[in-house]
Amino acid sequence: MLPGTRYNQLVGGNVARIAALSDGVFAVAMTLLVLDLKTPAAALVHDDASLAGALLLLAPRLAVFMMSFLTLGIFWMGQQAQLNYLDRADRDLTWLHLLFLFLVCLMPFSTALMAEFITLRLALALYWINILVLGLVLLLSWGHAARAGLLSPAATHEIQASICRRIKIAQTLYALATALCVFGTLWSLGFIVAIQMVYALGPTRGWLSKI
Amino acid sequence: MLPGTRYNQLVGGNVARIAALSDGVFAVAMTLLVLDLKTPAAALVHDDASLAGALLLLAPRLAVFMMSFLTLGIFWMGQQAQLNYLDRADRDLTWLHLLFLFLVCLMPFSTALMAEFITLRLALALYWINILVLGLVLLLSWGHAARAGLLSPAATHEIQASICRRIKIAQTLYALATALCVFGTLWSLGFIVAIQMVYALGPTRGWLSKI
Amino acid sequence: MLPGTRYNQLVGGNVARIAALSDGVFAVAMTLLVLDLKTPAAALVHDDASLAGALLLLAPRLAVFMMSFLTLGIFWMGQQAQLNYLDRADRDLTWLHLLFLFLVCLMPFSTALMAEFITLRLALALYWINILVLGLVLLLSWGHAARAGLLSPAATHEIQASICRRIKIAQTLYALATALCVFGTLWSLGFIVAIQMVYALGPTRGWLSKI
Amino acid sequence: MLPGTRYNQLVGGNVARIAALSDGVFAVAMTLLVLDLKTPAAALVHDDASLAGALLLLAPRLAVFMMSFLTLGIFWMGQQAQLNYLDRADRDLTWLHLLFLFLVCLMPFSTALMAEFITLRLALALYWINILVLGLVLLLSWGHAARAGLLSPAATHEIQASICRRIKIAQTLYALATALCVFGTLWSLGFIVAIQMVYALGPTRGWLSKI
Repeated sequence: MLPGTRYNQLVGGNVARIAALSDGVFAVAMTLLVLDLKTPAAALVHDDASLAGALLLLAPRLAVFMMSFLTLGIFWMGQQAQLNYLDRADRDLTWLHLLFLFLVCLMPFSTALMAEFITLRLALALYWINILVLGLVLLLSWGHAARAGLLSPAATHEIQASICRRIKIAQTLYALATALCVFGTLWSLGFIVAIQMVYALGPTRGWLSKI
Repeated sequence: MLPGTRYNQLVGGNVARIAALSDGVFAVAMTLLVLDLKTPAAALVHDDASLAGALLLLAPRLAVFMMSFLTLGIFWMGQQAQLNYLDRADRDLTWLHLLFLFLVCLMPFSTALMAEFITLRLALALYWINILVLGLVLLLSWGHAARAGLLSPAATHEIQASICRRIKIAQTLYALATALCVFGTLWSLGFIVAIQMVYALGPTRGWLSKI
Repeated sequence: MLPGTRYNQLVGGNVARIAALSDGVFAVAMTLLVLDLKTPAAALVHDDASLAGALLLLAPRLAVFMMSFLTLGIFWMGQQAQLNYLDRADRDLTWLHLLFLFLVCLMPFSTALMAEFITLRLALALYWINILVLGLVLLLSWGHAARAGLLSPAATHEIQASICRRIKIAQTLYALATALCVFGTLWSLGFIVAIQMVYALGPTRGWLSKI
Repeated sequence: MLPGTRYNQLVGGNVARIAALSDGVFAVAMTLLVLDLKTPAAALVHDDASLAGALLLLAPRLAVFMMSFLTLGIFWMGQQAQLNYLDRADRDLTWLHLLFLFLVCLMPFSTALMAEFITLRLALALYWINILVLGLVLLLSWGHAARAGLLSPAATHEIQASICRRIKIAQTLYALATALCVFGTLWSLGFIVAIQMVYALGPTRGWLSKI
């Protein structure tokens, strides 16, 4: 391998292609999430009222899909933040991101499972494990990038710490939310959505802005 | 965060990744729109004449899909125009565009609903709401970008005003078209297609060029 | 709009995004083409011999899909050649390419139709019309780009003429191939595949290199 | 064609678009692999225990899908390594990569076939042939790039030899693994996964680091 600009350019291309593959996988997974919404059977629909009734039955499914879209959006942003701070990639980092994308691909399945069996704790637990492992892989990838010297100078110690802290706090909250299933899975789901809203809306004031 | 070139480059990467994710979501949604066209059952087709008959039955469905493809094309161009004028992105802007993409993902569902229940006003209303919210989110995103100083110098006041005006006029026309459903949903659909043709063909003369 | 570098950069971004959307649509359409290959029903397969028998039944379908993949590959390269010679895009050009992508999205449908009804001339005719209109739109797009001054200086008159000639010769050959259906649709398909092979293998010697 | 920077830029764009199309095809193929995991039928699931039982039945299918994801990941990285060393592309190289992508598109089919008929040697043989031809096409593409002078100066003789050696060793191992099917297809699958793990984890010490 040659040192210097040329080499950095080649390897820099790798980060760009990880990003490109990731955008593709996220785009397909996001679109497929919503695709599982099937139109009501024509035989059951005669007028506006019966269509409204049939669509109401789809409401919980729509809610679960919105939640999964939010989850994918949060992880897409988390991965993007990491990739933006990388100067280059190596083989291990690329494989960690392929593992990350495998877990992203599993999300439509975990989501469909939870939408179908919304009251079963096992479906919730598998959904949570999917989110948990996504977070762990992002944490591993960041740690590896720091150790292997792949980070750009812009990734100060403060930024490095903040990215780790962010993942750890989010995962702690998801674990707490899942633990709420002792009261019922809907409690867990409600709390998960609340966590996601905080991350999506990103309040800049008050204690919520610390997480 | 560091000031200067490096920082802009990192954040500039965000705009590029929003664009990349958007292109992916639009590409999948567009392709899936048309995929819902199923080949006629082999049992019903014996020769060219029976195939022609079976395909004629698909014609309204094809028309609705063309309309949705046009709609997605118009919104893709609208989003692209905005992203081209952004120097950088922030968290809120990224979330507004993720919300935009969520609504894009819903389009194949709204479309299938309308193709299946083409005479029901509720199906038309939901289709219109999908378009309306897509427009509102683009308007919000543009307003936020202007307030948060994310726009490039190339986005003069004139351009800023023209982008807002364009969205407002289009949405007014869509609302009018939907209101025509008091005469029947096909009136609305016809008018929606007419609006889209004006936007797609983009006449450069006469009063139509003002919208 | 501002003149100068900044403006060209913004508009240049449009060509890049047309390319990105196109790559996404082609990627989804190509993958979906092959996806229509279904695994044989488990009830029919007991051992290697019965699996081989079941797969043999899939052979014509596989052949049609390979042909469509080739077709999409040829059009992807044709569009790419055009986009590489564009300095910038305008609204009309973008819409022509969106129309082109709509026709690309229709390819999996035309293909499935022909795979299902391989002996019917109507299925062949629709397949051919899809290819014909794809070619016409590319021709229109190139003509518009030349008239509107969107081409880069690298697109010499010789290159411009060669791109037009290439499309016209290919379309003439496709039309001839389709006309062969008076002898049977399989004659047409065989000739189409032969044309595509010439384009894909691209002989550099002999009279075939002229087309 | 013009010599100099402009020309290289145009042709360089081709390599970028091969990469973009490839990322799209890989992203769709990877996502679709996992999508074949269907949620258990609601009629069979009454509580956590019956859901666990239903999911256990999916385990072999999940294992095959993970294996195919790994395979696609390995080939994605192999193709990426090649493209990073290309200065420009020509028509033959582009077609070789389109052929490569066609084989990538076939992977979900080969995978589904093997997941469905996991004990049949024919299913395994077809899966192996898919992998074999993917490797051969990469080898052909690399050889062509070297002969046609498309490689960048960074691709030293050492790097060129190492890329070829890597493909040949991997393909020899896959062939050996497939030959193990005389003892049973599960032996082959186990050995294939072992090979993939070595490539994914990439040990840097010991004799395994040589392959």
